[in-house]
Amino acid sequence: MKPTGPGSGINRRILLSALPLLPMPALLPGTAAMAQDTGSQLASWNDGPAKQAIIDFVRATTDASSSKFVPPQERIATFDQDGTLWVEHPMYTQVIYCLDRVPAVVAQKPQFKNREPFKTVLSGDREAMAKLSLPELEEILIATLTGMPVEVFEAEAKKWIETAKHPRWGRLYTELTYQPMLEVLQYLRANGYKTYIVTGGGQDFVRVSSQQLYGIPPEQVVGTASGTKYGYGKDGKPFLTKEPKLLLNDNNAGKPEGIHLEIGRRPRAAFGNSTGDRQMLEYTGAGDGARLMMLLLHDDAQREYAYGPAQGLPDTKVGTFTQALYDEAKKDGWTVISMKNDWKRIFAFD
Amino acid sequence: MKPTGPGSGINRRILLSALPLLPMPALLPGTAAMAQDTGSQLASWNDGPAKQAIIDFVRATTDASSSKFVPPQERIATFDQDGTLWVEHPMYTQVIYCLDRVPAVVAQKPQFKNREPFKTVLSGDREAMAKLSLPELEEILIATLTGMPVEVFEAEAKKWIETAKHPRWGRLYTELTYQPMLEVLQYLRANGYKTYIVTGGGQDFVRVSSQQLYGIPPEQVVGTASGTKYGYGKDGKPFLTKEPKLLLNDNNAGKPEGIHLEIGRRPRAAFGNSTGDRQMLEYTGAGDGARLMMLLLHDDAQREYAYGPAQGLPDTKVGTFTQALYDEAKKDGWTVISMKNDWKRIFAFD
Repeated sequence: MKPTGPGSGINRRILLSALPLLPMPALLPGTAAMAQDTGSQLASWNDGPAKQAIIDFVRATTDASSSKFVPPQERIATFDQDGTLWVEHPMYTQVIYCLDRVPAVVAQKPQFKNREPFKTVLSGDREAMAKLSLPELEEILIATLTGMPVEVFEAEAKKWIETAKHPRWGRLYTELTYQPMLEVLQYLRANGYKTYIVTGGGQDFVRVSSQQLYGIPPEQVVGTASGTKYGYGKDGKPFLTKEPKLLLNDNNAGKPEGIHLEIGRRPRAAFGNSTGDRQMLEYTGAGDGARLMMLLLHDDAQREYAYGPAQGLPDTKVGTFTQALYDEAKKDGWTVISMKNDWKRIFAFD
Repeated sequence: MKPTGPGSGINRRILLSALPLLPMPALLPGTAAMAQDTGSQLASWNDGPAKQAIIDFVRATTDASSSKFVPPQERIATFDQDGTLWVEHPMYTQVIYCLDRVPAVVAQKPQFKNREPFKTVLSGDREAMAKLSLPELEEILIATLTGMPVEVFEAEAKKWIETAKHPRWGRLYTELTYQPMLEVLQYLRANGYKTYIVTGGGQDFVRVSSQQLYGIPPEQVVGTASGTKYGYGKDGKPFLTKEPKLLLNDNNAGKPEGIHLEIGRRPRAAFGNSTGDRQMLEYTGAGDGARLMMLLLHDDAQREYAYGPAQGLPDTKVGTFTQALYDEAKKDGWTVISMKNDWKRIFAFD
């Protein structure tokens, strides 16, 4: 993923991402009527301003007698994935996937075996891996995410996500989605909203499991995207190959740009958790009428993680929520969700 | 739209396109059951192999007991626009829009007034305009399609399409959609298919009127796309500006590439009318299970136009349907629709 596109200042954030598979954990069933009346679908939320903001927004925009009513076709809600819909610590899931793929790539290309950064990854030394430089990480991503037919990539990613586990919980990554956010997705959909993922992670990677994890079909996933190249196999059959050419860097300003490219409508609601989501929330908020902008603050080291560095939380470099972003949220009327205070439980298995 | 993207051999075709607004002409209402039973929604089609191919495909893929059954979420159908859903002669509608916009652009940038190609366009001399070179046309497209906020472009295009008329019929371009194809769109949707436009025309241009013309929302339009740039106005409000930078050349190989980028699923059915649609149909046909590939042959000079040059029709350079494409269709089991023989009527007003 060479930075050949517009606004392509590559950083660690854009190199990373996440996604999964597996049966979807316990989405509550519900009719639009139920949802609209009581917000009772938000069962994992504590009563408070965050839960209330969601309910107020949905009620106002779906009430035909309200001045804030939004026609169904304009009901678009966008969600960042890493750190907003599922765990992004200690590392974006997609990066773990790429590191895990290195042995298979080296098996196919033995010339990589004694070359850095592949050698370090093959050593299995996690500490050394954590010190890989940005260009080294980039080389690993290019080697593991591009060069193959799209169906081959899809099959490999699918297989991985069905078995890979998170070191802290010893559970599948696919189990580490946030139950309260699954409820928000479901609540919005029950009220006519079309839900999208807008992720800095790889679009193809996230699409592999978006339906199973979130009930979001691949065509409603916008992410960092490399180009593909159409060609023909020896049998004359056409196929697309993933190219190491960045088309869309779906982070920061790239999020509203990606939304315009692949959706073509300004969202009515947007959810994020880091500075990479700032422009998406600004762009959402700049539209007319009722809008909902929410930022998840990871302030719960006990049940998940606490990092920021907004509100004096540690700066862990993954999913950075700065104090400046916090201040912008307060100034612009965005709602900050405190994981610690607003969520009754974090995961379906809690 | 400078050719900076992959596969960016610019030709007249990619520079052009079409779209409209206005209330949608007479879409037949219908339930899935009706549609599935009889294909009675295809009222403007003569009985014959083309109509039958559509009905057979829909029946097989929606019958849960059929080996060709397709789960609803995989029911994706893609349609070229110019020459497939509406008239593309004598010139792609989007090019007419761009030519019509020149006076307004020159009013804002008086330095263009005595410069070619703007001078020729301002002269109103249609014959001279028809002789503009490719780089000159490109300059006009860049001047009229980029450099403004996306909402400004949208408003301008919307205003134009509400009043612009076709020289032959003296009717709004928006009335020149093909009634039989509107019926196919409706029939597929009634059977659970998600319908997409995949056009060589400008994505933003086509999105302005896709809902009104075809019942296809903007987010289901994939087209030739330039990048946008996120920035802030003097009031601090963020907005996106259309940039003269080609991101996706959605023609030829660019069609399957665009489908992968913005949909992420291989279509089950694809409809086109020219060599620009070849790869989309090939890619669709290369998938497993039931697939429907159809090409519209314009062989009706009396009711619409006859051009090709397949089957000895004249080569008019717009929407080229070569004999080689015709032969590929026959060889690969694609269905060629004869406008003359397969369609009872062409337009809703016939």
